[in-house]
This record gives sequence, structure tokens and C-alpha cells, in this order.
Amino acid sequence: MRKSVPLLGTFLLAAAAAALEFAESASSKTRGPVDPGLVDDLVAANRILDAQGVVDGFGHVSARHDGDPNRFLLARSMAPGLVTAGDIMEFDLDGDALDPRDRSLYVERFIHSEIYKAYPEIKAIVHSHSPSIIPFGTTTAPLRPIYHMSSFLGAGVPIFEIREAGGPATDMLIRNPELGAALARKVGNSAVVLMRGHGDVVVGQSIQQVVFRAIYTEINARLEAEALRLGEGEVNFLNAEEAASATATNNAALGRTWELWKRQALSRR
Amino acid sequence: MRKSVPLLGTFLLAAAAAALEFAESASSKTRGPVDPGLVDDLVAANRILDAQGVVDGFGHVSARHDGDPNRFLLARSMAPGLVTAGDIMEFDLDGDALDPRDRSLYVERFIHSEIYKAYPEIKAIVHSHSPSIIPFGTTTAPLRPIYHMSSFLGAGVPIFEIREAGGPATDMLIRNPELGAALARKVGNSAVVLMRGHGDVVVGQSIQQVVFRAIYTEINARLEAEALRLGEGEVNFLNAEEAASATATNNAALGRTWELWKRQALSRR
Amino acid sequence: MRKSVPLLGTFLLAAAAAALEFAESASSKTRGPVDPGLVDDLVAANRILDAQGVVDGFGHVSARHDGDPNRFLLARSMAPGLVTAGDIMEFDLDGDALDPRDRSLYVERFIHSEIYKAYPEIKAIVHSHSPSIIPFGTTTAPLRPIYHMSSFLGAGVPIFEIREAGGPATDMLIRNPELGAALARKVGNSAVVLMRGHGDVVVGQSIQQVVFRAIYTEINARLEAEALRLGEGEVNFLNAEEAASATATNNAALGRTWELWKRQALSRR
Amino acid sequence: MRKSVPLLGTFLLAAAAAALEFAESASSKTRGPVDPGLVDDLVAANRILDAQGVVDGFGHVSARHDGDPNRFLLARSMAPGLVTAGDIMEFDLDGDALDPRDRSLYVERFIHSEIYKAYPEIKAIVHSHSPSIIPFGTTTAPLRPIYHMSSFLGAGVPIFEIREAGGPATDMLIRNPELGAALARKVGNSAVVLMRGHGDVVVGQSIQQVVFRAIYTEINARLEAEALRLGEGEVNFLNAEEAASATATNNAALGRTWELWKRQALSRR
Repeated sequence: MRKSVPLLGTFLLAAAAAALEFAESASSKTRGPVDPGLVDDLVAANRILDAQGVVDGFGHVSARHDGDPNRFLLARSMAPGLVTAGDIMEFDLDGDALDPRDRSLYVERFIHSEIYKAYPEIKAIVHSHSPSIIPFGTTTAPLRPIYHMSSFLGAGVPIFEIREAGGPATDMLIRNPELGAALARKVGNSAVVLMRGHGDVVVGQSIQQVVFRAIYTEINARLEAEALRLGEGEVNFLNAEEAASATATNNAALGRTWELWKRQALSRR
Repeated sequence: MRKSVPLLGTFLLAAAAAALEFAESASSKTRGPVDPGLVDDLVAANRILDAQGVVDGFGHVSARHDGDPNRFLLARSMAPGLVTAGDIMEFDLDGDALDPRDRSLYVERFIHSEIYKAYPEIKAIVHSHSPSIIPFGTTTAPLRPIYHMSSFLGAGVPIFEIREAGGPATDMLIRNPELGAALARKVGNSAVVLMRGHGDVVVGQSIQQVVFRAIYTEINARLEAEALRLGEGEVNFLNAEEAASATATNNAALGRTWELWKRQALSRR
Repeated sequence: MRKSVPLLGTFLLAAAAAALEFAESASSKTRGPVDPGLVDDLVAANRILDAQGVVDGFGHVSARHDGDPNRFLLARSMAPGLVTAGDIMEFDLDGDALDPRDRSLYVERFIHSEIYKAYPEIKAIVHSHSPSIIPFGTTTAPLRPIYHMSSFLGAGVPIFEIREAGGPATDMLIRNPELGAALARKVGNSAVVLMRGHGDVVVGQSIQQVVFRAIYTEINARLEAEALRLGEGEVNFLNAEEAASATATNNAALGRTWELWKRQALSRR
Repeated sequence: MRKSVPLLGTFLLAAAAAALEFAESASSKTRGPVDPGLVDDLVAANRILDAQGVVDGFGHVSARHDGDPNRFLLARSMAPGLVTAGDIMEFDLDGDALDPRDRSLYVERFIHSEIYKAYPEIKAIVHSHSPSIIPFGTTTAPLRPIYHMSSFLGAGVPIFEIREAGGPATDMLIRNPELGAALARKVGNSAVVLMRGHGDVVVGQSIQQVVFRAIYTEINARLEAEALRLGEGEVNFLNAEEAASATATNNAALGRTWELWKRQALSRR
């Protein structure tokens, strides 16, 4: 703990400074400046998802611009674990960068642009190759909420099969708006969509919520696989009412895990 | 080792100072001051359970007040891995905080209050979402002692089904004294009660014992699941006499693991 | 992050210096000096494979000499996690060290020499006891690409049975050119060959690529084993076109994980 | 690496000094002084086994005295991960401490005394609750060598059932010479004996060898369990000749992993 405090303090100052600079340089092109706290949270989200093993060198997390619903924030193309505030860029809902300069972009930024376009209530998105969910995307075993922490899975977890929208010979990536739109159509009321042979996409109404969901989706997958073996397929999952109730409760407690994860992630390395 | 010593020393001093201050401010409202060592141990228990993966951002550990059996100590609502002595609060057996100030409380403090009320011999309680036990709470496979370290499971591990006491649409939490009392009735002579779709509660006669039990319950669950697969359901568990004998032996050796876990937990971050 | 920067800087300077010295001392015996960056990358590869759990005290990684295709670079016999630039030696395609001095050599250097001899397009090789692939080498379950990160497995993963080339009583090691040649014959167009009861060999066209492949082979094995259980043998793997397409895409993104892994590996200890 | 060097240096100096002091104080009671390097190695073994997850707060490792075959060295009763040179004590083959002072002793020191008494060629012993082997001790699935690193398992892995020697109501511990002798009789030519519901004992001809064996026994158990599921019981294990050959080879390479493990273990905390 003690050791992480100065690191954390330095980080927050640097993040705030970079966010401010970012907000100023981008403000002329958007309807309003971005909240420095949002950039700070997005950087923390990148580092948390890395520290918790949801992302490795690949995967990305975005947030809708809080001053302009037609914009979203996403890092330049890089490993999430290395992202700092200066790496956060602004995109429009066609997936175009507002101020690209010479920075390389995530090929799959259309996952974010198309979901934000289709669902105004969604404010944050994680795409990852979260390891424990990969087996669920390639088999018929449905991902369901085994405990209250992953109750958001109660809304159903569809599988996106890229062969339906992209044919049998894609490179598996959501590399254009059309594939992004096909993926977005799968989201509906779900918090999580599995992508066969690839990973998943997790959506939420805030950065804290989407990070919470991405992490507990990974944990649920590991525990559910274990329970299915232990119970030979018979597992007592949360029912729909329990899932909905627990989700409302969890939404009020997102800060508790966020503080812990942030402290752990930012004291690494 | 060497690196952890100053950290540990600083921690112990700070813990002792805070415990003293705590004891003084609370003494007018309880029948006797709390032993500073008890607060120190409760903080260490929080950090150990986090370092050992029994708790994450959620879960809590309490101890009965050593000067007043109608009181218990529990942190304010926060991640156990971040708890320090200043976060420890005092509660009565209705689950009310004696000196709440503006601090938020764990919704599920009634797990602790109702168990302490029903079982005078219980002095410490852990509630967690210990990952490996979740599958056992949602299937019919019983948790049994696979080796002597988890011999305390020999007293039986009941499953608490919240639907029986709270109906089919709870948020899974023990959020009032009635649900706490229903859970407490399941404890009986057991050291562990599984909570379906939620986690478990572990009880003991000291902080060191309850931490020992919580950690070895997690390990036992992982090893038993593996053994059930390996033996296709046929596993040679400890019998009742072996379990009772081993428990008596282990109770005399709690300090050995405690020292190691404490050193490891307090040198983190 | 912050903490690793000085360590990383120091490392790069030391690596560059050692590589330069190495290049000079070896240049008289080879057709051209080695690129200092190649030695730097080979050291990083050793440390990355250790940090990622692909190698432990055993295993090795080599690179073909960039100035002389009949030479390759490989550490002296030691744990990969401890390798520094001064430990890198130069070998010819018979597996003989050009400047052995009194240094001990890996018994299995013929894995490298014979594969480089047989396949001019191969520029880097990893041999390891990568834990999750061991079960696949000893059973009939084929290792196949479960997601796009391990798409290179789509070219097929043969199993090398040493009893065919070495008889029923070897010590399992590729300890001479004949066994090396037999193993090399199994490679063909594959990126990975499993060695029964031993480990695997992974080949690539660069150090970055072979490290990427070694790491995702380990992950694929773990996830595929899980999926086979979950799907009771029915798993929807990448098809041949998807695998080929994804491989082309991944080859353009090798730098992203490399930077992360390098940062993580070189900030350890 | 760089960071661990001073720590390691300090450790080695301290270890050498303590070993020297130990040798002098004990020399009057034994036929010869103990080699300071042996105490140094035994301390390293304790810390390595902890760092590698073979022991936790429990378990112990001993070495036969190099100057007197009727004596052996073992720490006082404590967690192996915290052992330093000053904690090493000397015992005779009845399990009695030569210079007990007020130090508490491992209840199960008779594991060591009786095996040293029965097998003059055995020079080092590990007893642990190595997690992955627990399921093999409680089922009928035999532990067999799945790859060359664990080839020493080829000599067979008997299971010790304490009910045969101690009856149906023990506390599972080898707490007297009689139980120690019964366990010793199971050893024969094996390197490993499983103890049902308890753990295992691993024997070797040196500290480096017994540590190597204890670690690869743990890994083999994990990989074999996985292979048995993957192959539905059909696994291609090393045959007897391969196991014997590989063991001879491995015995010549013990230093390679030892150096890595020692560096890793002594740079922790």
C-alpha cells in the first residue's frame, strides 16, 4: 500500500495534466471538452484490465465522450497495459479519428463506433480475448450467472458468428463498419456478446461498470466450467429475478472494487 | 524477507497507534476497551484474505469484541485489501454501528451479528466469494475434507439456499437480521456454510483460526474437484475420527501459517 | 511502468555494448557482423519466454545469423531467464560452436542446427517444455486453433515420436544431428511440432514471431483442453481460410505484444 | 536480475557466517563439522520450495549431515519460506535434537530420521502437501512420468495408507518412530511416496536433486491429470528404459534449474 501511494499520486497528476491538454487541443472539434476525470478513468481501465488478465497485448476499452454523444475515446493502437493519458484519441461514430496525426489505429475500432451508434444508453465498451470465455464461444454451453457478481449475464449472452456476416474466410476481425453493425445487432439487451474463435464484447453505462462486467465475465466463465463438470451439467444458476435484483445492487457498489483494482494496477511495474 | 521488515515494522507501529486511539474513543460506549492486538490481527486478516485470493473487492472478516461479548469489530464498507486500523468499526448484535459517523456500512453485516448472537463460542467470522467453493454451492457434490489441512470440513458443510428464507427474487444478499438469523441456523456445529450462488461463511474461535479455515476451504474445494474427476467420483476422504483428530492438532499450529501469510500480505504493494 | 524505465534503459545500453563486443570478436569467423539489435532481441526473447511461463530452467531460443545464413545464435547452456548478451554464442549448422572457450553447450542444439539446415526460410526457433502442450503430445487429441491468436496452428501440428528415430530407450533428448534431422523432417509447413513426453519446437521467420507463436501455443493448449471438456469433444475451431487470413493479420501486429512482454520481462527481479 | 544481486550477495554472506557459527557450536557433539555450503543449500531449498508452491506454511526439507551419516539437518518448527541459517538444527536418527534449547520441533521429524536410518544412500528428504499430488493420493489413478523432467517417477509411486500402520483414528501425522518406520518401508527404490489425505515424501541423493524432484512431481501431477482427461485415460507415458535414461541425464543438469530457482526465491520479498 504504502509503496503505491507516491506512484499513484504521480500518476494522477500526470493523468490530469495530460487530460487537460487533451481536452484543450480537441475542444475546437467537439461540442464540448472532455472531462479530465474521464480520460483518467479510461487510462485506469486499460491498466486494470491488463492487471486482471482480461486483456494481454490485445484488446481495448473505450468510453463515449461525456460532452458529445457522437464521439468516443479510445487509445491509439497499442497494448492496454502500456496506455497513458497521452495515448487517448477521439473518434466519431464512423470510426474516424478526429486528430489522427501519424498514430496507428486499432483495426477493430468499428466494434466501438457501431455499438455507440446503435445504443445511445451505452457509455463504455470493452473488447477482449478474455481467456476463460473463449471455450464458451466455440461450444454450445451457454454462459449463465453462477453467482451474484456476474448477475448481469442473466440478460443472456449471444454468440456472434462472423461467418454469418462476413463469410467463411475472414481474418476474424471486425475490420469495417458493416461487420461492426452486424456485431452491434447481437447486443440487444445483453451486457456481453461472445465472438466465436475470437473473444467477447462487454458493454456498460460507465467505465467502472464495464470494467466490473469484463472482469466478472472472465471469472464466471472459469467457475461455470468447473461447476458444469462437478454437477455433470446440472448447475443451480441465478434465476431471472435474482439476476435483475443483484445487478441493481451491484451497480451501487462499483466503486469498491474499482478502488482496489486501480490501486493494484497502478502500483505494478 | 529483508525488504519486508521495515514495511512490516512501520505497519505494526501504525496499527498499534490506531488501535490505541480506537480503544480510547470507543471505550466509553462498551464494557471494556478493545485489545489493540485484536484490531491489529483483524487488519492483518483482511490483508491476508486478499493476498491469498479468498476475497477480492468484496467479502469481510469480523472478530467478537474481547471485552464485551455483545459487540463485534468489522471494517467500514470497503475492499478488505485496503483496510487499515482506522477503518475498523464497532457493532452491536443488532448490526448497528456504535459510532457510525458518516461511514458506509457493509450491507451484509447481519451475517456477523446474527451468528455472534446465536453462537457464544464463535469469536471470528469470514464471509467471502472464495472462487473455488462457488461450484460446490450450486451443485449437489458435497464439500468434504480431502486432506488433514481442511479436516474442519469433517463436521459437515451445509448449503444455505436463500430462496427458502427470502423467496425466489432476492438480490442474494443477507441484508437484514431475518436473513442473517436464517443463515445462522444453518451453522450448527459446522465450520463452513456454503451460500448458493453467492459464496460462503466460515466461523472460528479466533481470527487466526477463521483465516486458516477460510484459506484451506478454498484449497480443499480446488483439490476435491480435481480428485472427483481423477477418481471418477471415488475419493478416499478423511473419516470422522481422522478429521476430528487432525483438527485438534491443527488448532495448535495456527501460528505457523499466520506468521507466513502476514509477512507475505503486509509486504505487498 | 515508471519503475521499469531505468531498468530497461540500463538493460538496453548493456545489451548494445555486449552485442557490439560480441559482433567484433565473432566477425572474423563469420561472413558478416551480427546486428546488435538481433542479440538484444534474442536476450529479450529468453527473458520473455521465462516470464510468460513457456520455459522454466530448461528450454532455449535461437535466431539465424542475419549476416550469414549458415550460422545461428544461441545462449550457452543455462536457464533462459538468466541469459544476458554476454551468454549468446555463435554456432554453425553442424551444431558446433565457433568460439566455444570453456562454456558448456545445450545438449539439444541439434534441434536448431538441423531445422536451420533444412528450412532456409526459418529464422528463429524455440524449444520448450511449455506445460499445457505436454498432454497434447501424449494423447491423440490434436492441437488446433481455437481462436485467431493461435491461427498459425492451422497448418497442422504433427507429433514427433522419438521411438521411431531413436528406438525405445532414449533419454528423450535430441542429442545428435541424426535425431535433429528426424525432428526437422516433421516440421514441413507447420509452425509447431509436439515432441511426445518432452515438449515442442516452434519455428518462425523472426524472433518476435517465434516468441508470439510459442506463447499463444501454450495458451491455445490450455483453452482447447477446456473447450473439449465443455463441448464434450465438439469444438468450433478456425477453418483453414480463417486460420490463414488471421495469420497474415497477426504477422503485422507482432510488435504490439512484443513491447508489452519485453517491458514486463525486463522489469522483473 | 540486477535488483536481486545485492540481496543475494547479502544473503550468501549471512548464510555463510551463520553456517560457520552453527558448525562450530555443533562440532563438539558430532563426528565432524557441517559444510557451511550444506546449510546454505538447505536454507535455499526451504525458500525455493516455498516460492515454487510445493510447500506453504507447512512442509519441511532436510539433509543428511555430510560429516556424520547418523545426523541430519532440519529447521526448527516454522514455515519453510521464513527459514534462515540460524533456524537449522541438528538431529540424530532417533529424531532427537542435539541442541534443542527452547526451540519447538516439527512433530513429523520422524519422517526424516526413519528414512535416513533405513536408506544410507538417501541424503535429502522433502515432506510436503504439494497441492497437485493430493488427488493422486486419494484415488487409484497412479502417478506416472508424463515427460522426461519427471522421469524419476518411473521407479513407481506407492501410496502410504496410515490406517494400515496407525489405525483408523490418527491425526494423519507421522508423529512417532513407528509410523516413520512404516512410511520408510514404503520407499524402497522409489523417489516419491504419496501419503493418503496428507501429502508426499520425496527422497534424493542431494539437496539439489530432492528439490528438483519435489518440484517436478508437483508439475507432473498437474499435467498428468490434464492428460488423463484429454486422452480419456489413454496416455503415452515414458517407458521404463526412457525413464531410467532420462533420469541419468537430468541428474547431470540439476544445477541449471537450481541457479534459476535460487535467484527467484531469494529475490522475493
